[in-house]
Amino acid sequence: MFEKDLHLTVLFDLYGELLTKAQNQMFDYYYNDDLSLSEIAENTGITRQGVRDSIKRAEDALLGFEKKLGLCEKLSSVSHTSEEAGQLLRSMKTKYPEASEDIEKILTLLASITL
Amino acid sequence: MFEKDLHLTVLFDLYGELLTKAQNQMFDYYYNDDLSLSEIAENTGITRQGVRDSIKRAEDALLGFEKKLGLCEKLSSVSHTSEEAGQLLRSMKTKYPEASEDIEKILTLLASITL
Repeated sequence: MFEKDLHLTVLFDLYGELLTKAQNQMFDYYYNDDLSLSEIAENTGITRQGVRDSIKRAEDALLGFEKKLGLCEKLSSVSHTSEEAGQLLRSMKTKYPEASEDIEKILTLLASITL
Repeated sequence: MFEKDLHLTVLFDLYGELLTKAQNQMFDYYYNDDLSLSEIAENTGITRQGVRDSIKRAEDALLGFEKKLGLCEKLSSVSHTSEEAGQLLRSMKTKYPEASEDIEKILTLLASITL
């Protein structure tokens, strides 16, 4: 915590709904709205230390979900593979211009799974 | 419950690690090892009703995780799209035999994301 870790916001997008409502809200204020701990404390009527603890618990929970489920890693691997397939297809467009219409169709499909 | 729902075993593969250890174990006995409630009761020293309740709670929890996170639906959609891209590529092999080596490479990549 307190160097804002972008990986955590990806985990939040995946698993945020499993957090308690309070943890979800604090995390969102801190990481997505970029509010300071003091600002969040002021907005919510909780102490700064309380806010800090809540965000820390949210971070630990998110990391715990990923450790148990590994779905962020899985989706990231899918996205990487799809990107790789897209690159091969784009290079095929130059080699086989007659196939470029078919290739475009496939690229469009792949774009929807490159996250 | 009690018509075994295959969709639940897919959810179990995704989210099973979030269940309590007991729920995970009962679910696994019932759905994956295909034991009867009475057999599980005998093996675990819990009443048949207790086993039944535990499996029901596991099922509800798995459905709840999917309702909140939707990752099964997301992965299934990725798999479907990848399968569609694969079909287009296979039809390209006939149309553009000169490209078949490149197409095979891409098909191999896609196979790893068609779940």
